[in-house]
Amino acid sequence: MKLLNVDLLETALDKLERAMTEAGKNIIETEPVAAHNSLGRILAEDIYSAENIPGFSRSTMDGYAVVSADTAGAGENMPVFLEVKGEVEMGKAAPGSICSGQCMYVPTGGMIPEGADAVAMVEYCQPFGENQVAVYSPLSYGRNMVLAGDDVAEGEKLLSLGRRIRPADVGLLCAAGKDIIETYKPWRVYIISTGDEIVMPWETPGPGQVRDVNTYGLIAEAERIGLEVAGWDIVRDDEEALRECAARAMKEADFVCISGGSSQGKKDATEAIIDGLASSGAFTHGLAVKPGKPTILGFDGPSETVLAGLPGHPVAALLLFREIVGAIWQRFTGMETAEKKITVPAVMSANVAASPGRRTYQLVELDYGNTCETGLPGAVPVLGKSGLIKTLSRADGYIIIDVNDEGVRKGQQVSVHIL
Amino acid sequence: MKLLNVDLLETALDKLERAMTEAGKNIIETEPVAAHNSLGRILAEDIYSAENIPGFSRSTMDGYAVVSADTAGAGENMPVFLEVKGEVEMGKAAPGSICSGQCMYVPTGGMIPEGADAVAMVEYCQPFGENQVAVYSPLSYGRNMVLAGDDVAEGEKLLSLGRRIRPADVGLLCAAGKDIIETYKPWRVYIISTGDEIVMPWETPGPGQVRDVNTYGLIAEAERIGLEVAGWDIVRDDEEALRECAARAMKEADFVCISGGSSQGKKDATEAIIDGLASSGAFTHGLAVKPGKPTILGFDGPSETVLAGLPGHPVAALLLFREIVGAIWQRFTGMETAEKKITVPAVMSANVAASPGRRTYQLVELDYGNTCETGLPGAVPVLGKSGLIKTLSRADGYIIIDVNDEGVRKGQQVSVHIL
Repeated sequence: MKLLNVDLLETALDKLERAMTEAGKNIIETEPVAAHNSLGRILAEDIYSAENIPGFSRSTMDGYAVVSADTAGAGENMPVFLEVKGEVEMGKAAPGSICSGQCMYVPTGGMIPEGADAVAMVEYCQPFGENQVAVYSPLSYGRNMVLAGDDVAEGEKLLSLGRRIRPADVGLLCAAGKDIIETYKPWRVYIISTGDEIVMPWETPGPGQVRDVNTYGLIAEAERIGLEVAGWDIVRDDEEALRECAARAMKEADFVCISGGSSQGKKDATEAIIDGLASSGAFTHGLAVKPGKPTILGFDGPSETVLAGLPGHPVAALLLFREIVGAIWQRFTGMETAEKKITVPAVMSANVAASPGRRTYQLVELDYGNTCETGLPGAVPVLGKSGLIKTLSRADGYIIIDVNDEGVRKGQQVSVHIL
Repeated sequence: MKLLNVDLLETALDKLERAMTEAGKNIIETEPVAAHNSLGRILAEDIYSAENIPGFSRSTMDGYAVVSADTAGAGENMPVFLEVKGEVEMGKAAPGSICSGQCMYVPTGGMIPEGADAVAMVEYCQPFGENQVAVYSPLSYGRNMVLAGDDVAEGEKLLSLGRRIRPADVGLLCAAGKDIIETYKPWRVYIISTGDEIVMPWETPGPGQVRDVNTYGLIAEAERIGLEVAGWDIVRDDEEALRECAARAMKEADFVCISGGSSQGKKDATEAIIDGLASSGAFTHGLAVKPGKPTILGFDGPSETVLAGLPGHPVAALLLFREIVGAIWQRFTGMETAEKKITVPAVMSANVAASPGRRTYQLVELDYGNTCETGLPGAVPVLGKSGLIKTLSRADGYIIIDVNDEGVRKGQQVSVHIL
């Protein structure tokens, strides 16, 4: 009985990864991208710095570059007098070096002259006579300056393969002169929604009809993950039409997602289509997750395309898209290991029961207004029958109740995954 | 002494908000956007549902729509026999109604016929004879179905003004037939970096020179916040050239950010330029924040442009851009109240000292591997002199040490703002 053949999510992902890995080397491709245009892209290489940053010792203050030992014992009533040997200009080499008893004016960011090892802030100095300055404060070695390589040393790893580029990373790449970086080429996803009952968002549903939710919800989720949308279609409940549409989509996309209804008839049809189109058949015929059981997976070797049948319920479809397409993308790009999974510790505000044998995703709202004695936000379950899109929109995140657990208790500490 | 006139961040934001509000009604504009293309946009209206979702009662299972009272007492050895009055087709009105003693087959998502108030799952039913079905399980009222309006009731508020659209919201808007929504038109930001020491990311810095970090880092941060970049420029340390560039930028942008060095000379120049270009002068001449003190703000009424002088240090520039431009955008769009600020409770892994009288931003890494007895991740301070871009890239977020606090202790619980 195929229908009893339900996989754990991890098992399904392992099967998918294996099938994709065996298929060949084109499963994941890289492409060069300009660093300044790389926000949100995934690094396909480790980035090392070819040089010290900064490349020279710089002042972090407006002041006088000095030999720190000269200032020992200086104080408000006992200044140290130093000879001013000139001024450093921004963007230029220091005009010479200094030695004990001398100093040189240097603006914030300016180059520290050779011989100097600290900077006396201008606020603690007073010009004296024609060519001297009085320093009223003692300075330790390295004070008010950064040394060459203090930010990044030559040869140091700046960013790891699998990193999803953030704004500060763009700055770091620019600082290191990495103007072209190798990134993973986003997979192309094709979304197919099926159902005789579906009308377009701008149409008025008749009796028994509903507006399409999944197509645009999944397109937006694909965008959020950083994937490209190759196209989308809405197909009637006609196995032949659906098969044709999926076959066409396989030519244009790396991932074809069919989100059908959850009725047995539709599930059978989607399963038959995936089984027929995937070179080695469908290998996952259901998942031990709730919501999301009626999920089907297959992989076609020759065209290197993943075929996924997602549940029709919008909440399940969006969650499973994230947990399957998003997760396998993270595995292949190395994001899974390179990027920290940020979760929010919270305290359950109510009991949630779960069926052992399934992984349960429970949507929650975070309540920062009622943090009680632990100081942690409350995790308030967002209840509602599955299929209600409003629940997902209202939730801040979800908790995962593991396959062996019977639920979570009120007051229990949980980790909330942010949506 | 102008230089002592340092504002608290909140005060500076209040001044800015007041100046912008007084300037007129074009400060923030709205524009219609297709719902399916609205990911990341900010809603400029409350969205109410004009109808029930679903518009009719639907089955959540494959099964038989029944009168629940008929099934009272049914059990494995004591089925209830019902007359099958036909079958509901997907996307069509139910073909008639049922009354006590009758039932109708309905697929998942199909319309519940009038008279029925529960659905018996097909797994608990057995066809019997030509026209009957045996139901082996009792059903409570409303079982295995959603009522019309269960997801969203007619007139219910779906999403609030100020909401930043997420993938599930796109689905919800589509479900409710809101194909065009009113959103805030992103402000246009112009980034000017100044400095004789700056070379482009693809150039090799000579002695005393550094590559430009701020321009692209700030452009990426503007993108992340959801703003548009009108343009950017790198200008030498020449007050006249900078003034001309800023005046030109004001014609194209709503927000002109000048990120200069932090030397007194540069700060004075930026201040003079903002003071001259802003119709009512610069009103903030420094901020009581660390890093980020040398921040200048002004507003020009006639052109409705904000002029901001940001610190030259990349970390400070990025943080202050977020805390000023991002924060004022959130105020004007209502995002500040509509969107929950998700922070992560964590435990400090080390002491961090702060100077009272300033708000201190301390970058931290989250350590989920060492959650000790509280179960909370560690907040590990990312140390490094200001100006080091690597620290910001390495950090997962930051904590805010308030203006009246002297620091945080090791073991203290803190809220981490995610970067």
